[in-house]
Amino acid sequence: MANPFKNCAFFLEMSVRDYELDLLGMVNNGVYQGYLEHARHEYLKTLGLDFAGLHQAGYRLVVLRAELDYLQTLHSGDRFVVTVHLRQETKLRFCFEQAIFRMPDQTPVLKAKIIGTGLKINGRPGLPPQLLELFK
Amino acid sequence: MANPFKNCAFFLEMSVRDYELDLLGMVNNGVYQGYLEHARHEYLKTLGLDFAGLHQAGYRLVVLRAELDYLQTLHSGDRFVVTVHLRQETKLRFCFEQAIFRMPDQTPVLKAKIIGTGLKINGRPGLPPQLLELFK
Amino acid sequence: MANPFKNCAFFLEMSVRDYELDLLGMVNNGVYQGYLEHARHEYLKTLGLDFAGLHQAGYRLVVLRAELDYLQTLHSGDRFVVTVHLRQETKLRFCFEQAIFRMPDQTPVLKAKIIGTGLKINGRPGLPPQLLELFK
Amino acid sequence: MANPFKNCAFFLEMSVRDYELDLLGMVNNGVYQGYLEHARHEYLKTLGLDFAGLHQAGYRLVVLRAELDYLQTLHSGDRFVVTVHLRQETKLRFCFEQAIFRMPDQTPVLKAKIIGTGLKINGRPGLPPQLLELFK
Repeated sequence: MANPFKNCAFFLEMSVRDYELDLLGMVNNGVYQGYLEHARHEYLKTLGLDFAGLHQAGYRLVVLRAELDYLQTLHSGDRFVVTVHLRQETKLRFCFEQAIFRMPDQTPVLKAKIIGTGLKINGRPGLPPQLLELFK
Repeated sequence: MANPFKNCAFFLEMSVRDYELDLLGMVNNGVYQGYLEHARHEYLKTLGLDFAGLHQAGYRLVVLRAELDYLQTLHSGDRFVVTVHLRQETKLRFCFEQAIFRMPDQTPVLKAKIIGTGLKINGRPGLPPQLLELFK
Repeated sequence: MANPFKNCAFFLEMSVRDYELDLLGMVNNGVYQGYLEHARHEYLKTLGLDFAGLHQAGYRLVVLRAELDYLQTLHSGDRFVVTVHLRQETKLRFCFEQAIFRMPDQTPVLKAKIIGTGLKINGRPGLPPQLLELFK
Repeated sequence: MANPFKNCAFFLEMSVRDYELDLLGMVNNGVYQGYLEHARHEYLKTLGLDFAGLHQAGYRLVVLRAELDYLQTLHSGDRFVVTVHLRQETKLRFCFEQAIFRMPDQTPVLKAKIIGTGLKINGRPGLPPQLLELFK
């Protein structure tokens, strides 16, 4: 099967864990934000941008807005792929465009836009140089 | 102090629990969706619309889209209020407008719009009569 | 009604949140550990022993063993009380004896023993002076 | 490297997700119970014992007691293996002996005993026939 994620900057395969299900046997809406965050962090690590490193460099990334479109639900035992695409939104804001696909049938489960900014240690906005480098 | 929530259909006071904090001592972004959901469910119960009752009546409410604006972060020990305002969006869609305020200073922490619909037991869209009654 | 918790060093009232329920509408087994931890942290705060303060004083508390006896289950909307009793177990170990009671009927829901120790910044075991003071 | 899990009835490899970390960058104590439960459920599925199937057959499995020994902590990015060994404890009780090992170095992270029983639809204790078959 053709890989629909091959043009994607980063993707991560995960599995539903039963304690993430709600009363109706569906993954709870809030859990998807955890899936998305985990994939973003793993992607940032591949860029050398982990929490510890950023912190030492005097920067902190914060989420300003999340938009989540729920298209399907995941159930017990489902495998899925979380994709990550990062772009600069404005001088001080970045945007993660993310999606979740159930595997192996690649059914779209969720689409999301996560908009964030960087804060310097003095509390003023500023993106870390490694991110700015990426956006060149 | 004047109560800024008095015109609100429903509000619920809660407290941050330490296991909800992330590496930086701030409530994790995904946890807020849990806070919002819990307040929506408590509100729906006051309308006689709990999960069990809806299920027996042959309906299920599902979230289609969530928009979350993160304005401030909550920390260890913070108390906060979650507000709920419910309105009809289209014939088949409803919208919860929600907000979180840190207490007792009432600092806005988060603003959210949660758009959903109802599904009948046969899988076709349809809002439960109790909700339609509310929107009259 | 007589207060069965009045001889207890500390107790905290909490409520079940719907996102903590599992497939069968019961609070997930792992969630109770969060309830217990939250009550322990709140208790330690009343002793002036919060994470930040301990960290600055060069100490870290770690759990070595948890024993949990599940007696009843909590459901949607249930209120409950978590009790905390702290005693010294050995020179380097402390023990939290905890219980959860459903309210207002005071049905015992869970009994737990949480055994822990302290680590100094150099990684060697050692209890913080504030705890040792408490055990005198 | 020799596989220390080969004599194990079942094992499952998982990874730490960043939203599972606490203030100190360590996986929160309560999260391990989720890891253990997920591995148990996956194991039970390989025996044809999933929640839905059991429910239809009129049985429900419940945890009576959990004993958890915390030996090491898992951190961001760690991979680990959860093992499952199931045996009959008494006529009406079963015991899961479980362990967690950090990978690839196989450092023991946690040891656990989870004791449970089965309940029939009428609320009386009873183990499902598939489990009893397994214990022969």
